[in-house]
Amino acid sequence: MQPSNQICFLNGQYLPITRAAISVNDLSVQRGYGIFDFLRVVGQQPLYLADHLDRFFRSAKEMRLEQGLDREEVTEIIFHLIHENRLAYSGIRLLLTGGSSPDGFQILRPSLAIVQKELAPPPDTLLYQGYQLVSYPHQRQLPHIKTIDYLMAIWLQPWIREQGADDVLYHQAGRVLELPRSNIFIITRSGILQTPGDQVLHGVTRKQILELAAAMGIPVAETDITMDAIRDAREVFISSSTKRILPVVKVDGFELGPYTKDSIAAKLFEALKEKEQKSL
Amino acid sequence: MQPSNQICFLNGQYLPITRAAISVNDLSVQRGYGIFDFLRVVGQQPLYLADHLDRFFRSAKEMRLEQGLDREEVTEIIFHLIHENRLAYSGIRLLLTGGSSPDGFQILRPSLAIVQKELAPPPDTLLYQGYQLVSYPHQRQLPHIKTIDYLMAIWLQPWIREQGADDVLYHQAGRVLELPRSNIFIITRSGILQTPGDQVLHGVTRKQILELAAAMGIPVAETDITMDAIRDAREVFISSSTKRILPVVKVDGFELGPYTKDSIAAKLFEALKEKEQKSL
Repeated sequence: MQPSNQICFLNGQYLPITRAAISVNDLSVQRGYGIFDFLRVVGQQPLYLADHLDRFFRSAKEMRLEQGLDREEVTEIIFHLIHENRLAYSGIRLLLTGGSSPDGFQILRPSLAIVQKELAPPPDTLLYQGYQLVSYPHQRQLPHIKTIDYLMAIWLQPWIREQGADDVLYHQAGRVLELPRSNIFIITRSGILQTPGDQVLHGVTRKQILELAAAMGIPVAETDITMDAIRDAREVFISSSTKRILPVVKVDGFELGPYTKDSIAAKLFEALKEKEQKSL
Repeated sequence: MQPSNQICFLNGQYLPITRAAISVNDLSVQRGYGIFDFLRVVGQQPLYLADHLDRFFRSAKEMRLEQGLDREEVTEIIFHLIHENRLAYSGIRLLLTGGSSPDGFQILRPSLAIVQKELAPPPDTLLYQGYQLVSYPHQRQLPHIKTIDYLMAIWLQPWIREQGADDVLYHQAGRVLELPRSNIFIITRSGILQTPGDQVLHGVTRKQILELAAAMGIPVAETDITMDAIRDAREVFISSSTKRILPVVKVDGFELGPYTKDSIAAKLFEALKEKEQKSL
């Protein structure tokens, strides 16, 4: 998936990804301290670039990671990589870490890497088979910031497989929160689209879904959701930049769905795909 | 503090620390996934090496980071670095990360770095001025494992300074837990040494203190401690490999102490220093 001749950007230089290395003294390596963003690229065109840059610069600011380049400069680097690497379908990761630190704690000069990699396009139609989740009590640290903290997500992988699930749904104190890399939505029995508003990462695809749903006349609420509400919902689905929308067919073994072409998940998926194509 | 000619170990090779770099695709950089341990070295002698190796290999196992070298091989590397770098007083960091991952999630081949750096020796007498803490509601993820997750600790630094404190004391659900890099102890009014037993990292110095106190006839209990118990305590002190013992004079502005030569903190400090010297 990642040919060795691909060019990336690292701290002011373009170089092959195989040579892109950072010090073992970097605060990401030493202390897990860093942020990132990840956007899809279709041919020569990044999707929802402005939204991703908004979040990337907001995350950087909240983590006190000042890297010196402004939006225009980061945008230029992104288009330079797209032009050089000529991938039909790809993802671009903006990665900003604490940089080398003399005392292993103080942030001096953050390290910026921008890396493009080939990516399989998301399926063109909604997968009615859907996704199986298992729930786990956990809340991400600094949940509104897109940090590199996936300690729990990676640690849980074998357990998730043992449970026969595809992914994990975090919840805490009775509230459903998010998946490690996706947001969650429900359609209630009365037809309201609900998604948690607090203590979760505000995904770029999540934002598109809320806007599209409102435009389609679906009542929308950012609100607390309980595990009971999940079981009681007419539809449950997740969203992410790489997956768009995936209906959930099981949570902790409890069956949800079925989903048809007439489901709201399917309609939102089509609307999202259409919006993407228009934006290219 | 860290001359460029110092030799470190990285994935099977000895090389200068300035050249020790790992891929931007490493799971530590991408996902904050890794563990470490840190031990003091006095001249040619590592302190409490067996305890640090025990914890390092236990952390590695719990995080599914298999790096292929056994205790004897890691010990040889440590002594090779000590011999090559010839530092009068130093610390050695064993760092084990998730390694490069094709999908940014799967652990394939972990990355092992062993780095020695010069270190100021801890003060030879107890600092009666002591340490000021501010409390913050937080519990480390996977607290019994020495992971590289210090996201919250680094993020809180400016706030800790604003509060006029030296460090932060984590607590959750009414229970005092630990500091980012230290354990906490109290001496109750009835003269019992207490320290939290659950949901904290079991420090190597913490272990020494519990053993020394028991040998000195001080009643010892690993138990839950409330914030009220902190305010009510006769003594409050912290422990770490680099600090040994530091008495706490303030928590959230509430004054503790004073500490004298007759305090238990001072007696334990002397006993700890003596034990170190004997072990060299």
